[in-house]
Amino acid sequence: MDLLPKCNANYVPLTPLTFLKRAAEVYANRTSVIYEGTRFTWWQTYHRSRRLAASLRSLNIVKNNVVSVLAPNIPAMYEMHFAVPMAGAVLNTINTRLDAKTIATILRHSEAKVFFVDYQFVPLAREALRLLMGDHSRECVSSETSFPLVIVIDDIDSPTGVRLGELEYEQLVHKGHPNYVLDDIQDEWDPIALNYTSGTTSEPKGVVYSHRGAYLSTLSLILGWEMGSEPVYLWTLPMFHCNGWTFTWGIAARGGTNVCLRNTTSHDIYRNISLHKVTHMCCAPIVFNILLEAKPHKLIQITSPVQVLTGGAPPPASLLEKMEQRGFHVTHAYGLTEATGPALVCEWQDKWNQLPRDDQAKLKSRQGISILTLADVDAKDLKTMNSVPRDGKTMGEIVLRGSSIMKGYFKDPNATSKAFKNGWFVTGDVGVIHPDGYMEIKDRSKDVIISGGENISSVELESVLYRHPRVLEAAVVAMPHPLWGESPCAFLAVKKNANGNTDDVKESDIIAYCRKNLPHFMVPKKVEFSTELPKTATGKIQKFQLRALAQTFEVSNRGNQNLPSKKAGQSDQVNTNIPTYVGQPHEHVLALSRL
Amino acid sequence: MDLLPKCNANYVPLTPLTFLKRAAEVYANRTSVIYEGTRFTWWQTYHRSRRLAASLRSLNIVKNNVVSVLAPNIPAMYEMHFAVPMAGAVLNTINTRLDAKTIATILRHSEAKVFFVDYQFVPLAREALRLLMGDHSRECVSSETSFPLVIVIDDIDSPTGVRLGELEYEQLVHKGHPNYVLDDIQDEWDPIALNYTSGTTSEPKGVVYSHRGAYLSTLSLILGWEMGSEPVYLWTLPMFHCNGWTFTWGIAARGGTNVCLRNTTSHDIYRNISLHKVTHMCCAPIVFNILLEAKPHKLIQITSPVQVLTGGAPPPASLLEKMEQRGFHVTHAYGLTEATGPALVCEWQDKWNQLPRDDQAKLKSRQGISILTLADVDAKDLKTMNSVPRDGKTMGEIVLRGSSIMKGYFKDPNATSKAFKNGWFVTGDVGVIHPDGYMEIKDRSKDVIISGGENISSVELESVLYRHPRVLEAAVVAMPHPLWGESPCAFLAVKKNANGNTDDVKESDIIAYCRKNLPHFMVPKKVEFSTELPKTATGKIQKFQLRALAQTFEVSNRGNQNLPSKKAGQSDQVNTNIPTYVGQPHEHVLALSRL
Repeated sequence: MDLLPKCNANYVPLTPLTFLKRAAEVYANRTSVIYEGTRFTWWQTYHRSRRLAASLRSLNIVKNNVVSVLAPNIPAMYEMHFAVPMAGAVLNTINTRLDAKTIATILRHSEAKVFFVDYQFVPLAREALRLLMGDHSRECVSSETSFPLVIVIDDIDSPTGVRLGELEYEQLVHKGHPNYVLDDIQDEWDPIALNYTSGTTSEPKGVVYSHRGAYLSTLSLILGWEMGSEPVYLWTLPMFHCNGWTFTWGIAARGGTNVCLRNTTSHDIYRNISLHKVTHMCCAPIVFNILLEAKPHKLIQITSPVQVLTGGAPPPASLLEKMEQRGFHVTHAYGLTEATGPALVCEWQDKWNQLPRDDQAKLKSRQGISILTLADVDAKDLKTMNSVPRDGKTMGEIVLRGSSIMKGYFKDPNATSKAFKNGWFVTGDVGVIHPDGYMEIKDRSKDVIISGGENISSVELESVLYRHPRVLEAAVVAMPHPLWGESPCAFLAVKKNANGNTDDVKESDIIAYCRKNLPHFMVPKKVEFSTELPKTATGKIQKFQLRALAQTFEVSNRGNQNLPSKKAGQSDQVNTNIPTYVGQPHEHVLALSRL
Repeated sequence: MDLLPKCNANYVPLTPLTFLKRAAEVYANRTSVIYEGTRFTWWQTYHRSRRLAASLRSLNIVKNNVVSVLAPNIPAMYEMHFAVPMAGAVLNTINTRLDAKTIATILRHSEAKVFFVDYQFVPLAREALRLLMGDHSRECVSSETSFPLVIVIDDIDSPTGVRLGELEYEQLVHKGHPNYVLDDIQDEWDPIALNYTSGTTSEPKGVVYSHRGAYLSTLSLILGWEMGSEPVYLWTLPMFHCNGWTFTWGIAARGGTNVCLRNTTSHDIYRNISLHKVTHMCCAPIVFNILLEAKPHKLIQITSPVQVLTGGAPPPASLLEKMEQRGFHVTHAYGLTEATGPALVCEWQDKWNQLPRDDQAKLKSRQGISILTLADVDAKDLKTMNSVPRDGKTMGEIVLRGSSIMKGYFKDPNATSKAFKNGWFVTGDVGVIHPDGYMEIKDRSKDVIISGGENISSVELESVLYRHPRVLEAAVVAMPHPLWGESPCAFLAVKKNANGNTDDVKESDIIAYCRKNLPHFMVPKKVEFSTELPKTATGKIQKFQLRALAQTFEVSNRGNQNLPSKKAGQSDQVNTNIPTYVGQPHEHVLALSRL
C-alpha cells in the first residue's frame, strides 16, 4: 500500500498561485479588477502578474527574496499578491499607517530587495528610506542588508514629481517578457508572505506564511463565509492586513471581481457598492460607523444585500440592526495575523432565525467555530494544558493548531518558540466555550482584571459601556485596589450632545448605568473621560498607556490625568507617533481591535 | 526564511478525519445521520466511530490493513468511512452489484483482513467467500492472503438466521473502549481508501486514495457545488462510488445531515425528501427517470428546491426542464474513480439565466471547469502533448494534474505508469475546450469513430438519438465501411407505444431523424433494435459487445444479431454475469455512464 510514490500528476504543491492560473483559464473574460476607470479580466490579471514576475527576475530577484510594498488597495497591490510569489519571492505588504521609523525597521529586518511605493506614500517612504540609509551608512560594514530598489506606482490622479528613483510599476509590467518561464513552486512549505505585526515590544515581528498555509486558509475562509461563485468584492479591508484575510487569493479562486478602493470614505464605499453591485466586503467595525454616520446626500440605497465579514469587538445589537436595515448582512469572526486572518467564524444556524432580535445579536456577537483548515481549537488552562469545560463560563486561553497557522516569526526563534507551546499556537486571548461548541473571546489574557479572586473580562465590561447611548470609545483596565487587589477602571470618550458638549455625562451616570447592567463586582470603581483614547498605528486602543495611568490612581486620584488626545489638524491615519502596545504578544487584526 | 521548520502547531497532516472531530465539537447536538427510525448526532457519530476503530484495533487491525465492506447506504457504511481510517486501516467499499466471483477477486487482491457484510448481501458474500476459500485452499501454501474476518451488519428489518460468522457490527461498536487512544495520521500521503474499478481487462484495478487527496477533494467538491452549511443530504448515490464522491466526508465538514437510504425507489426518495426537507443529493441520470416516471400516488410534492449533482451523459433539455419543474436543480459534473469523483463541475454563470431554455440546457450539459484542487486540466494531443485550441471543436485527450488524483493502482505498477504520462493523468476521454474555458467531453478516446478522416463522437450522436421521443437507450459504435474505413452503427432500445409495441419504429425513421439533426457524415449507416442493450455490473452499456457485433455487419448484415437482452424475472441489479467492458482503461463513475 505504501509503494505508490508521489508524482507530478498526483502531487502538486499547494499554492494560491494555482487559483490565478485556473481563473485565467476558466474565467478568462470575466472582470477580475475594477478601479475607477480601470478594468482587467482574469486573463489580463494573470498575464500582467506573469510579466511583472518576469521583470522582478530580470532585476535579480531570486527565491526567498523579500519584496516590500507600501500601497493602498489598488490593482498593483492586488497583482503583486501573485506576481511576487510567481517570481519565487516573498511579499511583504506594509501597513500604510505606520510611521517612517517603523517602516525603516521593517525594510531593514526583512532585508527587502525591492520596495514598491504608491505615489501617495512617497513622502513617507522617502523619510523611511532616509532613516534606513542612516542605519545603513552607520552599519554598512557589518550589515547584510542592501538598500532596496525603489519602484513607484503611479496612478491616473498622481501629481507629477512624486518620483523616487527611476522605475515605475506599469513600465515593469510592460517590460516583462510575456513568455518568460517561471519556476513552479517546488515545496508548499516555502514562504509566500511576510506580515509584520505592529503590537510588539521593541521591534515589529515578521509573521511568515507558507504557500500551503495560504492556500488552505483561502479555501477555508471561502467555505466559512460561504462565498459563492462570482462574488463582487469591495476592498474596504486593507490588503496589508493578512493579505486581505486571504481574500486577495480567494477572489481569484472564486472567479470574482475585485473592486479596488483608494480611500475608505463613506461616499466611495456607497458609490462602489451601488455602481458595481457589490456582494461581499470585509472590514473592521469602525467602518460600520462610517457607513451609518454617512450624511444623507452620500447615502446611496443598496438594492441587494451585502455580506460583511468583520472582526474586532462584538458589534452591539442596535448597531447590527441598523446595518441590516441598510442592507448589510454581518458575520462575525476572530483571528490574528499568526492564523492567516480569521480562525473562528460565527457560522449562522437556521434555527436562530426564529429567536428574538436581541438573542440573535448575542449569538451573532460570539466569535464562533473553527474554520475547516484548523485541525483543532481549544480553550485551555495553560498550566495544566487541560481543556476548560464547555459551560460558557469558565475562561481558558485560546489555543489553535493546524495548517493555517504561520510558519513562525522571521529571524526571531525566541518569539517563535514562545508562540508554540506543547504543539499548540497560544493566542494570548482568553475565552469560553459555550455548550453548543461556539467560542466567545473574553479578553486578552493580560487584560483580564482579577478582583477579589473573580476574573473580570475587560471586553465584557467594555461591551456594556458601548451600549450606553453616549459612549463613543471605551477601554477598561485594572487599577490597584487595597482590598480587592485589582479593580476595573474605565476610560471613555463620549459623543457630543445637541449643543456640541460632552461634559453633561458624569462619572456617577456611568457608574449608575453599569450597576443596572452588570454584577456589582464588575462595576468600574473609577471612570475617566477624554476626547479620544490613545491608539496604535493600526487604530487599536493602547491599553498599556491606560494601565500605566491607572497604576497611579490609588495614590493620586484627582480626575483626568493628561490623556494623550488628538491634536488639531491631526488625521486618524497619522497618530502613529505613540509607541505601540508594549505587552501584546501578537497582532490581533480582528478580535478586540477597533481599527 | 527557510529556517522555520514544521511543528505540531502549524503542520497537521491533511485528513478528512479532522472533519468528524470538528463536527463532534462544533455541531455536537446536530443530527448527523437519519435512517428510518434511527437518528444520531455528530457527537454520537464521532464516538461510535472511535469505538468501532478501537474494536478494529483489538481485532489486530494495523496500519494499512484493508477493511472491506459490502453494504448499501446505511449508517454503518457511513461510520466506517471514519472508523476504518481512524484505526489506521484502508476502507474498501465494494460495489454491491458485482457478482460473487468479482467480489472474491477483490477480497483476494486487496488482502482484506476484515469483511463487513450487510445482512441483505449475506448470500452474495457467502458465495464470494466460498470462491475465495476455493482459491485459498488451492493456493494456501503460496498465498499471502489470509481469509478475512467476517462481520455482519444487522438491521431492524433483517430476518433472523442471516448470520455469517460470530460477530455483529453493533456489538463491535459497543465493545470498543470509548477512551482507546487512536494514533493520529502521521503522513497525509498514507492511504485512506481503496476503490476497485469494474471496467477493466481481466482483474479489477484498485484505485488508492491518500488522506491528503481525500481531504482536498472533499473541500473542493463542497466549493464546486457551493454546498452551504447544514445541508440535508440524501444518499441516492452509492457510498461505494468514490466514497460517495467524497460527500461521506463532506457532510461532516459542513455539519449537515446524512439521510441514509437502503433502496433507491422513487417512493423512498420522495418520502425522504419530503420528510427531512432534503437540500442536496447526487445521482446518476438514471435516477432522473426513476423520479420522473414515479406513479402519481408515489409522487410527493417537493416544497423547496433540491440541488442535484449528476454525472454521466448530458441530460437532454426536456429532461432538465421536467426535473426543474419537479423542484430539482441539476448541476452537471464529470469525473472518474481515479480523480476521487468529480473533476469538472459545470459552474453556472448568472448571465446565463437570461438565455433561452434550450441554450441554457446546452450550457448545462457541458462538463464545465476544473474543481479547485486540480492544479491543471487540459485537452491534449497525446502524441505531441500540445494543448488543443480553445475553439469548442478540436478534440483532445482530457488530462488532469493535482492533489485529487489517486496515488495509483494497488499492486499494479504497469497500469499505474500507463495512467500517468508526462506528469499528467490520462483519462482516456476526449473532449473540446470552449472559448470560455468550459470543457465538453465528446467520447471515450477509443469510442471515436473515424469516418473518411472525420472524427465522429459517438456520444454526440447518441445525445441526438436520445432526443428522439421514442428512444430509451442508444449506443453508437464503429462498423467497418469499404469506402470510409469506419461508419457509425446505432444500437437502440425503444419505448413502447400506446399499444405496448415497439415495432412501429423503423430504421428508416431513425435515419431520417438523424439526417434532419446531424451533418450527413455523422448519420448512422445502420440501426439495430433490441429490447435492452447489454450492460456492465455498474449499468454502463457494454460497447465492446456491440462493437464486436458491428464488426460482422459489413459481411453479414441481416437485422438483429442476437443482442443479449434481459431475461424474464432478472432484476436490474443482478445482470452481472456479462463480462465487464474489455477496452476501458478507467472506471468512469460519472461521465459517459448510465448507472
